[in-house]
Amino acid sequence: MTSEKLIEISLPTGEKVAVESGITVAEALKRLTGGDHTPVAARLDGRLVDLSCRITESAVIEPIFPEDPLATEILRHSCAHVMAQAVKELFPEAKVAIGPATEQGFYYDFDYHRAFTPEDLKAIEARMKKIIKQRLPFIREELPREEAIDLFQSLGEDYKIEILKEIPEERVSIYRQGNFVDLCRGPHLPHTGWIKAFKLLSCAGAYWRGDERNKMLWRIYGTAFFSKEDLKKFLDWLEEAKRRDHRRLGKDLDLFSIQEEVGPGLILWHPKGAMIRKVIEDYWREEHLRHGYSFLITPHIARRDLWRISGHLDFYAENMFAPMKIDEVEYQLKPMNCPFHILIYKSRRRSYRELPLRWCELGTVYRYERSGVLHGLMRVRGFTQDDAHIFCRPDQLEREIFALLDLTVHMLSVFGFDRYDIYLSTRPEKYVGTEENWERATAALKGALEAKGLAYEIDPGEGVFYGPKIDIKIKDVLDRSWQCSTIQVDFNLPERFDVSYMGEDGRLHRPIMIHRALLGSLERFLGVLLEHYAGAFPLWLAPIQVVVITVADRHIPYAESVWLKLNAAGLRVEKDFRNETLRYKIREAQMQKIPYMVIIGDKEVEEASVSLRTRGGKQTPALSLEGLIERLQEEVAAKRAAA
Amino acid sequence: MTSEKLIEISLPTGEKVAVESGITVAEALKRLTGGDHTPVAARLDGRLVDLSCRITESAVIEPIFPEDPLATEILRHSCAHVMAQAVKELFPEAKVAIGPATEQGFYYDFDYHRAFTPEDLKAIEARMKKIIKQRLPFIREELPREEAIDLFQSLGEDYKIEILKEIPEERVSIYRQGNFVDLCRGPHLPHTGWIKAFKLLSCAGAYWRGDERNKMLWRIYGTAFFSKEDLKKFLDWLEEAKRRDHRRLGKDLDLFSIQEEVGPGLILWHPKGAMIRKVIEDYWREEHLRHGYSFLITPHIARRDLWRISGHLDFYAENMFAPMKIDEVEYQLKPMNCPFHILIYKSRRRSYRELPLRWCELGTVYRYERSGVLHGLMRVRGFTQDDAHIFCRPDQLEREIFALLDLTVHMLSVFGFDRYDIYLSTRPEKYVGTEENWERATAALKGALEAKGLAYEIDPGEGVFYGPKIDIKIKDVLDRSWQCSTIQVDFNLPERFDVSYMGEDGRLHRPIMIHRALLGSLERFLGVLLEHYAGAFPLWLAPIQVVVITVADRHIPYAESVWLKLNAAGLRVEKDFRNETLRYKIREAQMQKIPYMVIIGDKEVEEASVSLRTRGGKQTPALSLEGLIERLQEEVAAKRAAA
Repeated sequence: MTSEKLIEISLPTGEKVAVESGITVAEALKRLTGGDHTPVAARLDGRLVDLSCRITESAVIEPIFPEDPLATEILRHSCAHVMAQAVKELFPEAKVAIGPATEQGFYYDFDYHRAFTPEDLKAIEARMKKIIKQRLPFIREELPREEAIDLFQSLGEDYKIEILKEIPEERVSIYRQGNFVDLCRGPHLPHTGWIKAFKLLSCAGAYWRGDERNKMLWRIYGTAFFSKEDLKKFLDWLEEAKRRDHRRLGKDLDLFSIQEEVGPGLILWHPKGAMIRKVIEDYWREEHLRHGYSFLITPHIARRDLWRISGHLDFYAENMFAPMKIDEVEYQLKPMNCPFHILIYKSRRRSYRELPLRWCELGTVYRYERSGVLHGLMRVRGFTQDDAHIFCRPDQLEREIFALLDLTVHMLSVFGFDRYDIYLSTRPEKYVGTEENWERATAALKGALEAKGLAYEIDPGEGVFYGPKIDIKIKDVLDRSWQCSTIQVDFNLPERFDVSYMGEDGRLHRPIMIHRALLGSLERFLGVLLEHYAGAFPLWLAPIQVVVITVADRHIPYAESVWLKLNAAGLRVEKDFRNETLRYKIREAQMQKIPYMVIIGDKEVEEASVSLRTRGGKQTPALSLEGLIERLQEEVAAKRAAA
Repeated sequence: MTSEKLIEISLPTGEKVAVESGITVAEALKRLTGGDHTPVAARLDGRLVDLSCRITESAVIEPIFPEDPLATEILRHSCAHVMAQAVKELFPEAKVAIGPATEQGFYYDFDYHRAFTPEDLKAIEARMKKIIKQRLPFIREELPREEAIDLFQSLGEDYKIEILKEIPEERVSIYRQGNFVDLCRGPHLPHTGWIKAFKLLSCAGAYWRGDERNKMLWRIYGTAFFSKEDLKKFLDWLEEAKRRDHRRLGKDLDLFSIQEEVGPGLILWHPKGAMIRKVIEDYWREEHLRHGYSFLITPHIARRDLWRISGHLDFYAENMFAPMKIDEVEYQLKPMNCPFHILIYKSRRRSYRELPLRWCELGTVYRYERSGVLHGLMRVRGFTQDDAHIFCRPDQLEREIFALLDLTVHMLSVFGFDRYDIYLSTRPEKYVGTEENWERATAALKGALEAKGLAYEIDPGEGVFYGPKIDIKIKDVLDRSWQCSTIQVDFNLPERFDVSYMGEDGRLHRPIMIHRALLGSLERFLGVLLEHYAGAFPLWLAPIQVVVITVADRHIPYAESVWLKLNAAGLRVEKDFRNETLRYKIREAQMQKIPYMVIIGDKEVEEASVSLRTRGGKQTPALSLEGLIERLQEEVAAKRAAA
């Protein structure tokens, strides 16, 4: 005999139903919604739960349908469990570590004596399909931590024990499907049959807990979707992203290298890469001059004490390189340019008439990053910030922010980025400066964003402790977001360095300081550009803009004169007069993604003309050399996007 | 009764005379030359001696007349002794350390409890004049070292004792004049009356033996000449050099600073200084592009091991900064760019067809210098080299050196330097590489110098161990020489890094590597430029080229439009529309050494014209704004020297 207690279950939209206590979430939802759309999991009074979870108290319940990004995360997490089951069945000596869902899929780390081969992955996939077919339910179980430790001890899963020993909870949850059991918070899919489309992608080494002093485990990456179409779309996208990988392109196009002898995260720019940087830097300087900036140049090291004054040693030390001693004094590679700019500001008295001072520097800074997180040009240890500091009066703040947004949006669009996500981060819990100043500065940032007509989201409380900020993330052609530009108000450093200006009233005032980087790091920006254009840079950015190609040796003299004239016209032009087939030479120029090929054969020599071929294979009718030069110069000047 | 032995004394020119043994050098010379031109000292069989030295063996004797630079050195050295005598008489507690002649005068270091004041220097000068009037002879005495130690012990001269204890000679010489005695090799003037013109210049702190761990002594600087005219000429020159001191100009013109908080020898470039650097760097890049160079950019740090491969840790370690640890690996600030360029060369296989590769980098390097030798921009701890490395085949060497000389001479002359001292340094005793390669490379350097028609001196055996080199010292307007350009052949690094190219014969060959810097260090070059032009830069280099000045407030609207148009024409133009007198505003622009002032008054507004005034005070008749822009742009393009 059961004493049936009635409880009230309601949807966030308000619909209610009275059900008997102990009913499952799945059943409750079916009663509430009719069950024509099956959820994956649910939120019970805000807490994520499995559909099989039993409800014993009145509650608000919110179904999670497959369309919800959270559903995909649950799917992938469940798929990781299935993969772990398959691995344990095929490689019983493997020990499981952790296996979360990620933005693009999931992974699981295994302690195994060797890497898993592509053949292994195929076998694991096959076994997973079998498990999926079995529609094994994911069964949740809660138990005291000590019992869980005993359980995993009996299974020999040392990593789970290590995790269990470090968590504070007295009761923990485990999930079982088939003969597999994992320590897990959940929730999970109702059963393995829900996994309709998945793929294992790769295997790579990963240190336990990301710490290179720990054992290297083997991480298998995979992904999963609710439909085969979505999976295919993702795999195509992945293929395209691989094709655009800036590390591969950097090598293929001979743009840069990272070499063991120098050290990880330190970039060596080869001639063509350095040329792209020069073009970017020249353009950057030009724009900054036009916008009333002055340039500064400051050293790469300073006494460690400078970073004590600035406060970086208090809150940034772990990102700084180790100090070095010179004449018994500790020096430090600079992680930031700001303190130097402040010292220049303070080198003489400043008047309100001089403000705003807009000072910029292409400043190369060094920041310590763990070697595990380094990634090509995207995450490095040494990089050049397109840094600037603006010292202004409070009444100038909004206009300066507006001008900054204007310059940012303009420059990014010239590089081909027209889509952004903009975030305004406001006062966090711990902050310096007065509430009034924060409010005024935040209002100035908002005002400027709105005056400029830019859509933005507010990240409440996500400002840095020293002031509110605007972050601009650009979207590339593959729809990926890249944090580049940042505009930050700083109430802290002017205070710490006692920065002031003489006001119209004859008294000293504290200026407002703005930190900003538009491209962010040149290394990173170039990495993003490389992937955005898949190496096929627009003419103005291309390190080699034109290659003059001869059909046969008899065309060399005329081709040489064409080359000379293009060169004299200020174009970056190479020649390929080798005794190879035309087809071969064109193919090579295409591989090098050179925007234009000027092909010189009999007809061109006779007519004293040139034929133009784009890297995409388009050919133009013969045109005069002058016409060609004009056309190319115009395209460079217009900084048009890649054809 | 003396047994008179006859000896033979001869001049280097061949004249001979037989004299009795024991005769003084002065007397012997009188007999040989007639004595109508009095020498200061002499060389006896090549050894420098006093005129009072007695000759006991046949010898060749060479008089040193006042015209000889060596005579001036002896004069100054004697003057230093006179100064020390005066100081000891006036400040008996002062202890003497060392007091040599220098290129421009002499100094003496004293251990005293405080600095000597300008009044002290006056008193010392007065006392010196008294000593000079007394025509005290400088008397040489030789004695065993132990006796000398006893002597200086009795005088309480601890520094002399310290020196004596460290020298290996068993017998030493001392010199006495009046009651003063000094440990000294000599020679000296016959007596103090020879000092016709001298001046004490300054007093500064100097560590004993130049080591900052030792006691700080007080160094008094002075100078001396054989004539009052020469002294006056020198003092005028010194005044002019002071007026041109780049450290003063750097501050007055707000170009750069060196700040305690950052550290000695580290330059912070302020907006105007950074602008001059930008102009120089832009021009430098332009010329290098035109001359077939590619740019590289490399990190400021690398694993310490890289410097082990390069050999720098063996022979350059004391000039390197201390290492720093990153992930348990030692890293090192770079003192040179070469190893990075080599790694880029080695990043793929190179073919004979690619050579020569001309790779340049404005590479900022850090080298340890003792704080005592640091000097403004001239000697620093961090500086930007205009570095390049050329990898070429042996048959290309001479042509490359010729092109390098061509580029160097061209660039230096554009900056206003037309006078050089050129040195070719040949194989030293210790060297790497084959004798044959050295000879071929030295011949190539000579051949190029001669083909270019440049006069040069050979510095035999002064080449670096790794190859012969050409050094070019530029002469500034004050006739001072500054080492800037260097072109060095290197047989060492290609070997150590196993650098190769695939020859036409299908086999691997070793390329020749040339290191070169044309301007040397940008910091130093800018320092030299500043002193050469006394801050009055030619238009193309001036950080601010034009200032628009209003006579009265009613002229502002027109002046504003003039400013806008000059700005739009790409000129670096400022405005001075302040409510100050015209005279005051002109004076300030002159102090800032701004090449041109555009003055806007009633007449200019009425006629829609502009009036031009140079910083030198020359005025031109009113001209049209278009005419002005054209004139200024033409002057910039021509890179003409300062007016």
